[in-house]
Amino acid sequence: MRTEYCGQINLSHVGQQVTLCGWVNRRRDLGSLIFIDMRDREGIVQVFFDPDRQEAFTLASELRNEFCIQIVGTVRARDEKNKNGDMATGEIEIFATELTIINRSEPLPLDSNHINSEEARLKYRYLDLRRPDMANRLKTRAKITSFVRRFMDDQGFLDIETPMLTKATPEGARDYLVPSRVHKGKFYALPQSPQLFKQLLMMSGFDRYYQIVKCFRDEDLRADRQPEFTQIDVETSFMTAPQVREVMERLVRELWQDVKSVDLGAFPSMTFAEAMRRYGSDKPDLRNPMELVDVADLLKNVEFKVFSGPANDVKGRVAALRVPGGAALSRKQIDDYAKFIETYGAKGLAYIKVNERAKGIEGITSPVAKFLNAEIVESILQRTAAADGDLIFFGADSAKVVADALGALRLKLGRDLNITNGSVWAPLWVLDFPMFEDDGEDGLTAMHHPFTAPKEMSPEQLKNAPETAIANAYDMVINGYEVGGGSVRIHNGQMQQTVFGILGITEQEQREKFGFLLDALKFGTPPHAGLAFGLDRLVMLLTGTDNIRDVIAFPKTTAAACLMTEAPNFANPASLTELGIEVVKKAKDRPSEND
Amino acid sequence: MRTEYCGQINLSHVGQQVTLCGWVNRRRDLGSLIFIDMRDREGIVQVFFDPDRQEAFTLASELRNEFCIQIVGTVRARDEKNKNGDMATGEIEIFATELTIINRSEPLPLDSNHINSEEARLKYRYLDLRRPDMANRLKTRAKITSFVRRFMDDQGFLDIETPMLTKATPEGARDYLVPSRVHKGKFYALPQSPQLFKQLLMMSGFDRYYQIVKCFRDEDLRADRQPEFTQIDVETSFMTAPQVREVMERLVRELWQDVKSVDLGAFPSMTFAEAMRRYGSDKPDLRNPMELVDVADLLKNVEFKVFSGPANDVKGRVAALRVPGGAALSRKQIDDYAKFIETYGAKGLAYIKVNERAKGIEGITSPVAKFLNAEIVESILQRTAAADGDLIFFGADSAKVVADALGALRLKLGRDLNITNGSVWAPLWVLDFPMFEDDGEDGLTAMHHPFTAPKEMSPEQLKNAPETAIANAYDMVINGYEVGGGSVRIHNGQMQQTVFGILGITEQEQREKFGFLLDALKFGTPPHAGLAFGLDRLVMLLTGTDNIRDVIAFPKTTAAACLMTEAPNFANPASLTELGIEVVKKAKDRPSEND
Repeated sequence: MRTEYCGQINLSHVGQQVTLCGWVNRRRDLGSLIFIDMRDREGIVQVFFDPDRQEAFTLASELRNEFCIQIVGTVRARDEKNKNGDMATGEIEIFATELTIINRSEPLPLDSNHINSEEARLKYRYLDLRRPDMANRLKTRAKITSFVRRFMDDQGFLDIETPMLTKATPEGARDYLVPSRVHKGKFYALPQSPQLFKQLLMMSGFDRYYQIVKCFRDEDLRADRQPEFTQIDVETSFMTAPQVREVMERLVRELWQDVKSVDLGAFPSMTFAEAMRRYGSDKPDLRNPMELVDVADLLKNVEFKVFSGPANDVKGRVAALRVPGGAALSRKQIDDYAKFIETYGAKGLAYIKVNERAKGIEGITSPVAKFLNAEIVESILQRTAAADGDLIFFGADSAKVVADALGALRLKLGRDLNITNGSVWAPLWVLDFPMFEDDGEDGLTAMHHPFTAPKEMSPEQLKNAPETAIANAYDMVINGYEVGGGSVRIHNGQMQQTVFGILGITEQEQREKFGFLLDALKFGTPPHAGLAFGLDRLVMLLTGTDNIRDVIAFPKTTAAACLMTEAPNFANPASLTELGIEVVKKAKDRPSEND
Repeated sequence: MRTEYCGQINLSHVGQQVTLCGWVNRRRDLGSLIFIDMRDREGIVQVFFDPDRQEAFTLASELRNEFCIQIVGTVRARDEKNKNGDMATGEIEIFATELTIINRSEPLPLDSNHINSEEARLKYRYLDLRRPDMANRLKTRAKITSFVRRFMDDQGFLDIETPMLTKATPEGARDYLVPSRVHKGKFYALPQSPQLFKQLLMMSGFDRYYQIVKCFRDEDLRADRQPEFTQIDVETSFMTAPQVREVMERLVRELWQDVKSVDLGAFPSMTFAEAMRRYGSDKPDLRNPMELVDVADLLKNVEFKVFSGPANDVKGRVAALRVPGGAALSRKQIDDYAKFIETYGAKGLAYIKVNERAKGIEGITSPVAKFLNAEIVESILQRTAAADGDLIFFGADSAKVVADALGALRLKLGRDLNITNGSVWAPLWVLDFPMFEDDGEDGLTAMHHPFTAPKEMSPEQLKNAPETAIANAYDMVINGYEVGGGSVRIHNGQMQQTVFGILGITEQEQREKFGFLLDALKFGTPPHAGLAFGLDRLVMLLTGTDNIRDVIAFPKTTAAACLMTEAPNFANPASLTELGIEVVKKAKDRPSEND
């Protein structure tokens, strides 16, 4: 039905007759001539109708925006004065000799300037996706998945599908459940990741596996999460952690080269401990040069309890964050930052303004100056490398609160004061995560997942000192986003049971939930390791958007609803009966049991 | 950890030191030497241990089947007399100098001769997948998906993901429901296909879409169905049905060339009506030369009501099926075939044995001979081209029962009597399906789905004579399996509402279920058409298995259960409370309402 795409016609086609299909993007009726911008997936071309071609011209007067049309016409070079450098097809135009209106359009409920609410855009998603910037993101996404697949294929990774209807696992976040009709009263779970299946594939000997796969998490949704998301899921046998990282780093480097023509270079790596110490985050944005500087040792003996308390507490931390040029911040701005870090549990935000560095304590302004002496101030200024016009913020609390608060403040200041260099890419590997976290309530929990191997520890050593154990795990971070994470897995049954035991999973529960895994570990399991990338996040970085819904064709809202189709919806009562479940009526709707 | 894969070592490596990782496939301890066959994903190589290398030799005596090991050794050419032509690596062997036992294995619960029950194989799936024939099927599957993706990418199709958590649709078979936690009492549905989403992508202007995607159907399972299955899903805009078929046929032809080195040639096409008439099936296996031959006109006036009844009924049919060499069938065999077709609603199986064709009615044996005269018999023999030694079966019933029964009998006879040529490939297109079927109860139902466009009919014409309407739909059939199906879609709102109306969907229901589609049709929808292949079925054909579970890494049983992980399973009661649902207790477990 077409000979060319609108967006691909150029001077080489001049004089040719072409047939085009697409949409009226814009229309100008000059009376003597009718011009339209005609759009298809590859771009826009200018088409005009002349009264000499009476039939087409008359019909063209009926055209309105978003009519779906077919035209036959001749490609002409534009006059020099009519060339349009802003259009890929700006050197030519089409003289239309035939016009077919394939389908008419009502006026769109979305305006063309994209100022609609996101709610309207999601309701009419099929129209929103006509906008070139939206369509281009999905085209880039397709390009990315195609590139990743070719790379993985070429490296000998096998694309193997794992099930969507799986067994529920207690892997932290929450499963979507699917009632079974055949086995009434029982449920499948949608996978949060294919973790155990890919490990089993290694036990089968497939050696190198990958899959681009939907995963599901039923949790309270934040702006950058979706109930269903896509992972590039990878697992290998007989490869060490550095070898896995090398292949995955090469994939990402080549991907950036392909899509952005950018060389990311070799990725630096950093331990979890160093990342928390210097950046207050396990996914530091290295485009931001500011760092946390520990100063507890300088403040152990000050009278100011806010400082000396945490400075003398083994779980406490006192850190400084130098803000270049921050002395210009107003009282109000500083108060707003103090308020901002309250979200992270911080109870105040002490600071020093450095007016004249050379004058030491005489050259600073600070509400806490009275608690400090000249020597301490000089040490702080020296350690933070402060200069005239800088400001130093302090965090003093538990190590966790200090890291969270100053880590977040660092990012916010980087953006607000334009300190973060938005024009560069900053990838890195974060390594050596602790095996376990103490959540303060139920004992230890796995920091990655319970199948992660510890670094250089026997099961006995692990059992005796789990809190000191370092996981053989690694995260890939780009511009402060965790784009991928993985680990070496446990390939020894005794080690697996030891980890389950430390996590408080009884032997009976281990059998019920992971019996098949413990069985599988008895039959010559190979050493294996892997990684998973968040595809949505990679696409967001590569298409320059902070909104995950911009890179998904039909996304859900933060309330996990599809505004276009109105899912979820009430189910047919007959279906529920067949499934052997019923919806619990709200208390107020239900007659009292005692009636 | 390795320098080569076991299965890839050949004479070019002789003299080289190699490091291998893999599993002990077999072990022979000759006392003076220990031989093992060592296996990895690429194949098997022979390794031997010599007492000269004391440490490795001693450790090798501990080796048992399926131990996971690493060896270092030197590649040696085998003596001429020890060469093994059955092994890809049969010209060489490895003299092992170092051995590391990475992981030991208990004796396997599966025997290596594959005579285990399928139940055992599914329970220990990770071990079953170690068998080279199983592993090779999944490797071929990965090769197929990779090939398909490259083809589709190269043809300008964009890989776009559609949602898994969707709105329930009344598309015939049954949805898996997923209770929503955020919207208590409401449910998502897992998609039976991305049908409407891919149509909406066409309305957005993506022009060419594809996806290899999981779909779900909660139905009573037959041997060749799985609750989750994989579709190669395709949609295009501005392409006619023959153009869509051309691209899809080329994909399949190139795929067969790539995987099987077979040229399928140009696919013939056949209307639905012809397929039903000649083969009693809308997916005829053309490797089987037998055809149904209509003989109702010859039998209208016989006294035998079994024949004359259907012969005089507009909805009836009387057909003959000539079985070459079938006169040799025993009474018992014929009885068994009669029993077989009872499944399809047939009430008997009349037949004629052709002993001496030249003698006409005198040369036949038949329990129904007494109802026929010489002229009729001669006509039947002529029309079926019967020869000495043939047998002619008759079907006489409603057209549907005759097609189903003789169609199934044809396939069974083809297999039983080796009439079907198993060494060839027989692809074809089936075209011109009816728009609607009359299921005899609830009026008309859509033969494909309610979004399929009729061929050359206006909404008014369709409304006036729906039962005569032909759908612009097409199925691709290979060797009697429907491997793909598709259609031109409705791109006109009035036509869509007309079809919904014919299907008995009220305007209110149309709004509730398909409001977004009817809205979308108002804004310049392009003409669009598409197709979906069943990937599992394609892989079955290309790997030569009739068992769908052989081409899926972790399949479900016909009762939709995973024997390995024991999914589905009981849910945590707290989870159900959060979801706002409860499992309905069986009547006997529930205290009476009157207690």
